[in-house]
Amino acid sequence: MPSSPSIANSVTVRLTLPARATAVSEMTGVIEKAGGVVTGLDVTASGATKVRIDMTMLTHDPEHADTIVAAMREVEGVEIGRVSDRTFLMHLGGKLSVESKVPIRTRDDLSMVYTPGVARVCLAIAENPADARRLTIKRNTVAVVTDGTAVLGLGDIGPLAALPVMEGKAALFKRFADIDAFPICLDTTDTEEIISIVKAISPAFAGINLEDISAPRCFEIEARLRAELDIPVFHDDQHGTAIVALAALRNALRVVGKRLEDVRLVMSGAGAAGTAILKLFLHAGAQHVVVADVEGVVHRGRADVLSGEHPNHAWIAANTNPDDVTGTLSDAMRGADVFLGVSAPDVITEADVASMAPDSIVFAMANPVPEIDPDIAARHAAVVATGRSDFANQINNVLVFPGVFRGLIDSGVSHVDMDVLLAAADVVRDDERNATYIIPSVFHPDVSAVVADAVGAAVAAREGA
Amino acid sequence: MPSSPSIANSVTVRLTLPARATAVSEMTGVIEKAGGVVTGLDVTASGATKVRIDMTMLTHDPEHADTIVAAMREVEGVEIGRVSDRTFLMHLGGKLSVESKVPIRTRDDLSMVYTPGVARVCLAIAENPADARRLTIKRNTVAVVTDGTAVLGLGDIGPLAALPVMEGKAALFKRFADIDAFPICLDTTDTEEIISIVKAISPAFAGINLEDISAPRCFEIEARLRAELDIPVFHDDQHGTAIVALAALRNALRVVGKRLEDVRLVMSGAGAAGTAILKLFLHAGAQHVVVADVEGVVHRGRADVLSGEHPNHAWIAANTNPDDVTGTLSDAMRGADVFLGVSAPDVITEADVASMAPDSIVFAMANPVPEIDPDIAARHAAVVATGRSDFANQINNVLVFPGVFRGLIDSGVSHVDMDVLLAAADVVRDDERNATYIIPSVFHPDVSAVVADAVGAAVAAREGA
Repeated sequence: MPSSPSIANSVTVRLTLPARATAVSEMTGVIEKAGGVVTGLDVTASGATKVRIDMTMLTHDPEHADTIVAAMREVEGVEIGRVSDRTFLMHLGGKLSVESKVPIRTRDDLSMVYTPGVARVCLAIAENPADARRLTIKRNTVAVVTDGTAVLGLGDIGPLAALPVMEGKAALFKRFADIDAFPICLDTTDTEEIISIVKAISPAFAGINLEDISAPRCFEIEARLRAELDIPVFHDDQHGTAIVALAALRNALRVVGKRLEDVRLVMSGAGAAGTAILKLFLHAGAQHVVVADVEGVVHRGRADVLSGEHPNHAWIAANTNPDDVTGTLSDAMRGADVFLGVSAPDVITEADVASMAPDSIVFAMANPVPEIDPDIAARHAAVVATGRSDFANQINNVLVFPGVFRGLIDSGVSHVDMDVLLAAADVVRDDERNATYIIPSVFHPDVSAVVADAVGAAVAAREGA
Repeated sequence: MPSSPSIANSVTVRLTLPARATAVSEMTGVIEKAGGVVTGLDVTASGATKVRIDMTMLTHDPEHADTIVAAMREVEGVEIGRVSDRTFLMHLGGKLSVESKVPIRTRDDLSMVYTPGVARVCLAIAENPADARRLTIKRNTVAVVTDGTAVLGLGDIGPLAALPVMEGKAALFKRFADIDAFPICLDTTDTEEIISIVKAISPAFAGINLEDISAPRCFEIEARLRAELDIPVFHDDQHGTAIVALAALRNALRVVGKRLEDVRLVMSGAGAAGTAILKLFLHAGAQHVVVADVEGVVHRGRADVLSGEHPNHAWIAANTNPDDVTGTLSDAMRGADVFLGVSAPDVITEADVASMAPDSIVFAMANPVPEIDPDIAARHAAVVATGRSDFANQINNVLVFPGVFRGLIDSGVSHVDMDVLLAAADVVRDDERNATYIIPSVFHPDVSAVVADAVGAAVAAREGA
């Protein structure tokens, strides 16, 4: 499935053209013939014989942009100047700033913000540590922690190259939940060291968001930090994905008139995200789940389960597949109500989807290329969703993590549990739901507040219980 | 030396008074009689028989504020409402925010700031790590790292209670050098662990500012991090203090017409700050230095030097006091040209200052209470300076650390050396210098830029050498 020309691969080309009437339309024609999509055209200087123009266009990828620019050079009389990549321009200088919320204009300001006045604030916190949530950034600050081992679909690119993603995550925290988040990119992949570092830096933070840490280390890091810290720890790749997948599935099931308890559910992928989704689905009441990975269906008799070499697979075998289904993913899909993939591109076929039960649901969440082209899946399934922004029903963590942390911080809770995760999966109103709107846009103005309220209510219910 | 009523101990008292003509002046009279200084008076509501007023006043300390409020209650017909501490009000909610520098208004923005566009930026950095200084916050971000063991004059109050100081430091970085700084408050005092944590978190930062870590651990932490990291490491309590002290001393010597090479210099205090000052003074050319601590003058024959139990004292004995002076601090001061204290309140007397050479210089930098009342010292010394904001010639690190980091970051330097520190100590113009202005105000508009330029020039000279 080739990707469409996209804003993520948008470039601006500065060029000088002869001032003849057809020059601009010739140029846009060349760009469009080469597969680019012109989205903007600014004349930045004009003279008697020449005009200087900034042309902005969508491309498929950097190589495609090079091809387009080469074609543009061939137009008679054109001079090509600087070619700017709009995505890189947005990242120049980094995407975050740290600002002072207090004025420092006079010596008096200085003596309250810093010495000697600040000493009294320090002493107040030394006497009553809970005051830190009133008098410091601990009130509203989250650490976005990574070791750079599982960044997007790029894999182990290291902590420095992961920084643009962590900055972006922090920017999303601010945009969608007014949370101050800061990237902590760790130059170590040692489980114990990561745990001890996060514990050591935790005093200044209200919560820890683990990000893009590879499995299986991410399971132990998260479990241990949850046990040993008094602030909430959330691994977005696991729990954010699980919450948004459950939210989407609940709504998709309402659209087709089925119940989670009754449906036959087939999952592809047994990694960090897949396992977290599975656990939340089971906690939410799913009864008939079969999980497959590259080796086929996970069942009690499979070699890696019997040998115990893979504890996670053993757990899956013990808690799913009650009928001991064996065979391939394709075998498992026959008659299933729901397919959910967090695995790899193109692992299911049109025939697989056609073999499912009537009114089937397909969530093909592999990124950037889904388990099946959603347009093909939609020929047979009643509801189709992906992780991509260029199809309907984008299942995107941005819908949940800001609201989840807002709710956790505001309720001052010290840990996250399954009921809190479950409560967060409630993000579309009844009157808005249909087959192409099982999950709201990330820009829906209510989403974060709805999630935060649900989390707050779940925490209150737990504390009151 | 009792402290004056100060803005750092300013409170606002909300009160209701009977609407009689003399009520307000009675009230301000009571406050002033109790030693408070009224600085503001806002009528917030007024009726036929009563007025509600917010009265703001300077006090000595919180106990003094309580005493004043108790006296106010005695005024006939008054009702005292909320008493607000202005310093605490400034700290509410913390003093920093993390802001997104990029707009996230549309799905297009999202696809450039975050996935999928950000992936290309990550890959570019993975291929060429130096690009991180162009495309991420590493360009302009400093970690303010503490373990909370030596916070202001408060001692070991721990990382959480230290947070208001680190936030304040970050706010000063922003205010005076437009640097994004973020507090890293470590819940460990283990030297090796602190070193490994700072190394692990270093990818996202352009520099490390160590802060309020107790001696002698701070020496090893700083030396090891300088050796093992490829970004500059600066311990402000040592090097910031040393630079500003040298800047002040150079200018004071010009005022009295003496040269650093010639003067006899006596220092009180052999801790982190004292040692750093000593080393920079020696590097700058000082020849005749004697250091004293609570045991008296440090010399080659002293027990703790001979036993080697205190390597720092051994270093001092080997590098100072060429004439093997022994005895007390008071003995050493006779005939000295310069006294510099970074030790404890009131350790020298008026007679000690009187015993110094003509045109003597006294820097009594212990905080908050100096080694001698500066007004008393000024009866005999030609130039007097302290660390306090309520006397002339405040020797304040804020004058140097923002500019030093600005210069280090902008020159992309990987380490700090003595020549760079030396170059930074050049902050007053010739035409501005006099006995009460040996060091500029922190609000002098040129200071940071002058320091940054000097650092940049020193780095360029070194790299060119």
